[in-house]
Amino acid sequence: MTIVTSTHSVPERIAALREYMHAKAIDACIVPTGDPHMSEYTSDHYQTRAFITGFTGSAGTAVITMDDAGLWTDSRYFLQAADHLAGSGVTLYKDRLPGTIKIHEYLLQKLPPGSTVSVDGCLVSNAWAENLRRDTSAGNFNLRTDTDPIGEIWSDRPAVEFHAVSEYPLQYAGVPRTEKIAAIREDLAKAGADALILTQLSDIAWLMNLRGGDVMCNPVFFSYVIITAKQALLYADADAFASELVEALSHDGVALLPYDRFYDDLEVIDEASVMLDRETCSELILQSLPKDIRIINEYSPAMKRKAVKNPTEIEGIHSAHLKDGVAMCKFLYWLKTNAAKASETQSDMGITEISAAERLHAFRGQQDLFMGDSFEAIVGYGPHAAIVHYCATPETDAALEPHGMVLIDSGGQYLDGTTDITRTIVLGPLSDREKTLFTAVLRGHINLAKAVFPEGLSGENLDYLAHEPLWQMGLDYRHGTGHGVGHYLNVHEDPNKIYWDGTNCSPPMPPFEEGMLSSDEPGYYEDNAFGIRHESLLLCRKGDLTDYGQFMCFEEVTLVPFDLEGILPEQMQSDEIEYLNQYHQMVYEQISPHLEDEERNWLRAATREI
Amino acid sequence: MTIVTSTHSVPERIAALREYMHAKAIDACIVPTGDPHMSEYTSDHYQTRAFITGFTGSAGTAVITMDDAGLWTDSRYFLQAADHLAGSGVTLYKDRLPGTIKIHEYLLQKLPPGSTVSVDGCLVSNAWAENLRRDTSAGNFNLRTDTDPIGEIWSDRPAVEFHAVSEYPLQYAGVPRTEKIAAIREDLAKAGADALILTQLSDIAWLMNLRGGDVMCNPVFFSYVIITAKQALLYADADAFASELVEALSHDGVALLPYDRFYDDLEVIDEASVMLDRETCSELILQSLPKDIRIINEYSPAMKRKAVKNPTEIEGIHSAHLKDGVAMCKFLYWLKTNAAKASETQSDMGITEISAAERLHAFRGQQDLFMGDSFEAIVGYGPHAAIVHYCATPETDAALEPHGMVLIDSGGQYLDGTTDITRTIVLGPLSDREKTLFTAVLRGHINLAKAVFPEGLSGENLDYLAHEPLWQMGLDYRHGTGHGVGHYLNVHEDPNKIYWDGTNCSPPMPPFEEGMLSSDEPGYYEDNAFGIRHESLLLCRKGDLTDYGQFMCFEEVTLVPFDLEGILPEQMQSDEIEYLNQYHQMVYEQISPHLEDEERNWLRAATREI
Repeated sequence: MTIVTSTHSVPERIAALREYMHAKAIDACIVPTGDPHMSEYTSDHYQTRAFITGFTGSAGTAVITMDDAGLWTDSRYFLQAADHLAGSGVTLYKDRLPGTIKIHEYLLQKLPPGSTVSVDGCLVSNAWAENLRRDTSAGNFNLRTDTDPIGEIWSDRPAVEFHAVSEYPLQYAGVPRTEKIAAIREDLAKAGADALILTQLSDIAWLMNLRGGDVMCNPVFFSYVIITAKQALLYADADAFASELVEALSHDGVALLPYDRFYDDLEVIDEASVMLDRETCSELILQSLPKDIRIINEYSPAMKRKAVKNPTEIEGIHSAHLKDGVAMCKFLYWLKTNAAKASETQSDMGITEISAAERLHAFRGQQDLFMGDSFEAIVGYGPHAAIVHYCATPETDAALEPHGMVLIDSGGQYLDGTTDITRTIVLGPLSDREKTLFTAVLRGHINLAKAVFPEGLSGENLDYLAHEPLWQMGLDYRHGTGHGVGHYLNVHEDPNKIYWDGTNCSPPMPPFEEGMLSSDEPGYYEDNAFGIRHESLLLCRKGDLTDYGQFMCFEEVTLVPFDLEGILPEQMQSDEIEYLNQYHQMVYEQISPHLEDEERNWLRAATREI
Repeated sequence: MTIVTSTHSVPERIAALREYMHAKAIDACIVPTGDPHMSEYTSDHYQTRAFITGFTGSAGTAVITMDDAGLWTDSRYFLQAADHLAGSGVTLYKDRLPGTIKIHEYLLQKLPPGSTVSVDGCLVSNAWAENLRRDTSAGNFNLRTDTDPIGEIWSDRPAVEFHAVSEYPLQYAGVPRTEKIAAIREDLAKAGADALILTQLSDIAWLMNLRGGDVMCNPVFFSYVIITAKQALLYADADAFASELVEALSHDGVALLPYDRFYDDLEVIDEASVMLDRETCSELILQSLPKDIRIINEYSPAMKRKAVKNPTEIEGIHSAHLKDGVAMCKFLYWLKTNAAKASETQSDMGITEISAAERLHAFRGQQDLFMGDSFEAIVGYGPHAAIVHYCATPETDAALEPHGMVLIDSGGQYLDGTTDITRTIVLGPLSDREKTLFTAVLRGHINLAKAVFPEGLSGENLDYLAHEPLWQMGLDYRHGTGHGVGHYLNVHEDPNKIYWDGTNCSPPMPPFEEGMLSSDEPGYYEDNAFGIRHESLLLCRKGDLTDYGQFMCFEEVTLVPFDLEGILPEQMQSDEIEYLNQYHQMVYEQISPHLEDEERNWLRAATREI
């Protein structure tokens, strides 16, 4: 069998794979993007799809047959993928475009009935595999999910890296892991489940009050958990845990077991029923469990409980956002000052998208308990801002100039909380159309932020508010309005989304509860021209208790002004202006004590009443 | 066996029922409110619950055991029921109040296991019966649904009255019945169903392009329909059909069969599968069908198609609303003029709730194609308006005085459409609080009416808009915001409701489609003080088709001004004022040509710009 390395060309790698496939009688090999925990970001070890195609974007699925090779990816990556795939012999399939063949259709078309198709069962969810089996039933394929073909031929594959795991102090977590585990056991008892399998890393980090560094920007660690009435088993890398931590866990009834033993233990699990989520549990887990065990397919109770922040976490959210607001305001003063200077001298600002992101990172780095970025910052200048998932590379890195707008979507991980904020900054003169859209998006943001509603409503009842000013113009944005945010955890967490099509959401959107933290981020994107997004985080709070029941509202925890230079006040309703003025006054009062004089003067003007 | 009449006292009637129950070994007799078609209004023949308890309100369920009798009804009827039940020996159970025993709990408590419980299977849905069986499974009761005990003892029971059925002319219906039946057959084929059973009278009247007069305010006729690939069977009273009509139906492939034969025919239905809706089909239907037939439990395809009005119907909707607007404006001029006169002389207006309703009916009667009221008008003056389902009786009939507000919720049946409108009319000075709430409710109405949204949204996505001004004050109204409206059919029709809790709706709310007609009727009710509701009908229309897809909007088809004397313009947003001014201008332009000079002058002032 031929073994290849990253120095081999993609055709050479594919040839090696085909040799392996031939030896194992595999007719098609599906190579997805993912890790065994369905993480948002894929670490180096799991970059199998990038290895076999050469395409390094963050989303896509490859299919290799004995005489053909294709890569399916979505519109964010059409240009980049075409570039990366040039000369590889891999065909680009533009996913979700009308007329693009789907993977299951491709398989049915290319392969004779009864063919063997392989996919690493570790990297796809059970729901994904079930769908594939259903969609290809006409082909009567033999779907092998017990092999990792790329792993067999990739000799310089990076190892799974386990970083140190540490206790997440109770002063930030608020509730001891023993209490959390006890609550989860109550959930299991109610559902009549004997055991729970957790595979989502943020669920496990939350439940165990532990943090790690195994996934980019997410302070989580590779692990699995099995909870039964008597046992709490944590499968993770023993070397990542100090002995005191192992003892502390053991004291709390949590047994630390080797990460690699998880799948073996599943095969001998001695319980009558197990609760798991087929949407996030890998196919291999379902294959490994005893055939007679009863599966209770439920969204993770840890996910649901994690979404409702406790009082300590809420205190931390405010603390983290105060610091993040200070860093952002210092950064914006610096950016605005340079734009003004550049404008006077007609030169450029000497700042690029990448250098701006670095400067912002440095300002955050001055803040207490800062641990790193909560995601790779998006700094998009001019037309780049219209690319929703734009991420500047040295090749695309644009110089900021004293005209137009720059969209800056960034966030920080602080030990006391996670932030996520987008501001669209005006660097020079805007057209009326740009200002109208800047204002419309801001009105949508404000109308959602100031919603008041009785208990029971969810994000699908409120999403209209954020879209309304754009919809009135026949315009829209093609992403959700809001996502849940973790607590010194993942910046994108379920289930408290804000999106109008609740029937299309998984997990379904529950009613808002006090303590849920969601983003409020309407936008507008004009291809090849400009992009606008206004994002703050909203903490759901109880409002008045009246004869009509308990009312709920949002508290805007992000403390950074919206750029008044983009606003046309005459296009705003009076209550929207009032809300904006009050918000800006709050920002000034909270942030100004932490600024230098010049910054403070700038902030006073930036938060002036309109 | 003792036979009783309406001249016997309720205790005598109950004694006769118990004699029958003893003879038939029935331990408890449930007497619901309803007819075999789950109609909104119950005709005299089906007033069995009223007969056995003496309570004549429109909702309630009685349970008679050998030594006890109870009536369950909801808060609308607590006072009236207490009054009607006095001396009857029937206990009032206040339904849905915390602490009130539920019927199934009552049965489990009163009856030993294995008891026989009877309910007329004709008058309850299969879903209702299934729920009762589930909720009383601990009692192991024998539920008899094949007997009508009240019918056995009630000698002067009114017969089922069948009124003449007539062709609903194609010039109003727009689509011939043959096309509608063909479309329904396509629905059946898609669902793999061999037959469809329709029992809801509005579905049948719509499908067959026929109208009748068997249910109060609803131009429908008692009937059932069975559609198969080959046959269209209409079970109805032969005497109600002229011979030409029978021939016309026959020509269109519809066979008219005796109403009474329906249940017998069900027993010998020769199809493998039948589509029906367990929520609206009677228990007796399910009991009558062959046991081996496959039930496809689906919401009625006729209900879904009926909700989307065709171009001819839309033309009729506009015509009917123009006439209804003229009648309403003439009435309001008359009412306002009398209020002004009464105010000058400090006397009362000489008008009562009932006489006002009669006068309004008379104004409608002057209009072309007027066929009658679409429901019993609600005219509630002062505190009466706070009773959501208030209906004036000679005992409660209040004199209108030149102060406060009167709420008028009424509608007309025209051959070319059905109307439903509520206006709250200011008769004299209001407090600031009353004006603030009048304005808040109107803002909610306007914000829903001016919604613009992409295809795919349903009533649960939009309901926030109508509630928002009240929710911001911690206030609310305890009814849905909107219901579908039929076309010269029932004023309350499914499925295009507007209500935030979509998961609680049956049938579920579908996305809005062009041609759906819904009410927009937020309100506010202050007990013992006043009530406000602003209701117009909204026709869903296609808006712009843009790069972001097909946008939808509403057209306000009701043409009657909102009383400017109740409005505080300074509490309205500028876009709301703009909308109101445009709406009033449209009302003036369309209605004024049809008014007398004095009325026109009044309308000009009533629709002035604010």
